Amino acid sequence: MASDAQPSPVGLLEGISTTRAIRRIRPEPIPEADLAQILFGATRAPTGSNRQGFRFVVLRDGPNAVKAKALIGEACRSMWADKRSIDGYDSGSGTADDSPKARQARVMDRFVDTFEQIPVVVLACLIRHRDPHPSEGASIFPACQNLLLSARALGYGGVFINFHMMVEDELRALLGIPDNVAISGCIPLGEPEGNHGPVRRRPVTELVFDDAWDSPAPWATEPDGTRHTGKFS
Amino acid sequence: MASDAQPSPVGLLEGISTTRAIRRIRPEPIPEADLAQILFGATRAPTGSNRQGFRFVVLRDGPNAVKAKALIGEACRSMWADKRSIDGYDSGSGTADDSPKARQARVMDRFVDTFEQIPVVVLACLIRHRDPHPSEGASIFPACQNLLLSARALGYGGVFINFHMMVEDELRALLGIPDNVAISGCIPLGEPEGNHGPVRRRPVTELVFDDAWDSPAPWATEPDGTRHTGKFS
Repeated sequence: MASDAQPSPVGLLEGISTTRAIRRIRPEPIPEADLAQILFGATRAPTGSNRQGFRFVVLRDGPNAVKAKALIGEACRSMWADKRSIDGYDSGSGTADDSPKARQARVMDRFVDTFEQIPVVVLACLIRHRDPHPSEGASIFPACQNLLLSARALGYGGVFINFHMMVEDELRALLGIPDNVAISGCIPLGEPEGNHGPVRRRPVTELVFDDAWDSPAPWATEPDGTRHTGKFS
Repeated sequence: MASDAQPSPVGLLEGISTTRAIRRIRPEPIPEADLAQILFGATRAPTGSNRQGFRFVVLRDGPNAVKAKALIGEACRSMWADKRSIDGYDSGSGTADDSPKARQARVMDRFVDTFEQIPVVVLACLIRHRDPHPSEGASIFPACQNLLLSARALGYGGVFINFHMMVEDELRALLGIPDNVAISGCIPLGEPEGNHGPVRRRPVTELVFDDAWDSPAPWATEPDGTRHTGKFS
């Protein structure tokens, strides 16, 4: 997975359809040359009026990074404990060990318990040019997706989380992030323990409409063999 | 560019770094098989808690689409007239015909004047599960980026705009979009008149920090030959 391993090139369409949320991440560091390519990819994304207000704070093993990871790790553990209960991971099908819910819960347990060992955590920030707004994400989340896709191209993986919001004030103070800058997201990155592969979603015909809301788009077909999913699988 | 033209496959990293905002779009329709692949790619994106609240209303040449394009086209013309003045496209370097600002203004003139002829306009919508929030875009804008990248993979292009916000009420009424659904963005798509190619951004070292805000990341290098840009070029 490292830069000298020469992974075979991934095609654009293939990469888009096989970039999974990776939560089981090995502790090995990401070589700087690879990290450079990942961040370069992120910054190729569009932004509103091409303002390029996106900034990426990369947390590795520096003095601030260690403290920031500990803060976010604690937030993850607390938020996951709440979410586990609210989203019913331990009820219904979650009580069966081999259910998707139970598997997902085990992955999350491991993710939050070992968060501090994840080699790279990127804070995706946005310099705001106006008050906070629901559409401001158009200038930062495309870059986050580019970042995850670029990581996948080089054999790495990650996941977008917002658990950092619980400790946002502490993170701002620690890292010197100005008030006019949104910490829009947090992306842990590293070598996946599992594999990337076809992601599962609801059938495309449920997600795509033609000419009006809720109006079917029969042309919106999927590749043969596409598997579907609900929320927990 | 159509599905029978067999464009050579684009690599993932290459596609990410060469997907330009395409505003000069030919009027030829996009074949449904290609459109299906583009929308499939969009829906592979991650969403918060994998809720998959994204929905895409595809406007082609149906009865509602024609009316919706006219509404958005009118909004584009009005918004661009304002923006042209506010952003100073006709002052400073904009007065020189061959300046980046003047070129960009000509492209925008053409874009808004012929908006109704763009073959496909996608409204990217988000079913909200809570009140509007600055971070909600994490569940729709990654999908928009996937959509633009998928289009690029097949030889098409588009651009993310939000001019539709000016006529949002009319669009909701026309297309039957419920109140709890955000119209998060609008993406016109079609065959580009120009070409995709390396996008220009500010130097990566201005956009990437290591261990703290404003702390340099000397490892954040760029490929040889990377060209930089300000806002207007």
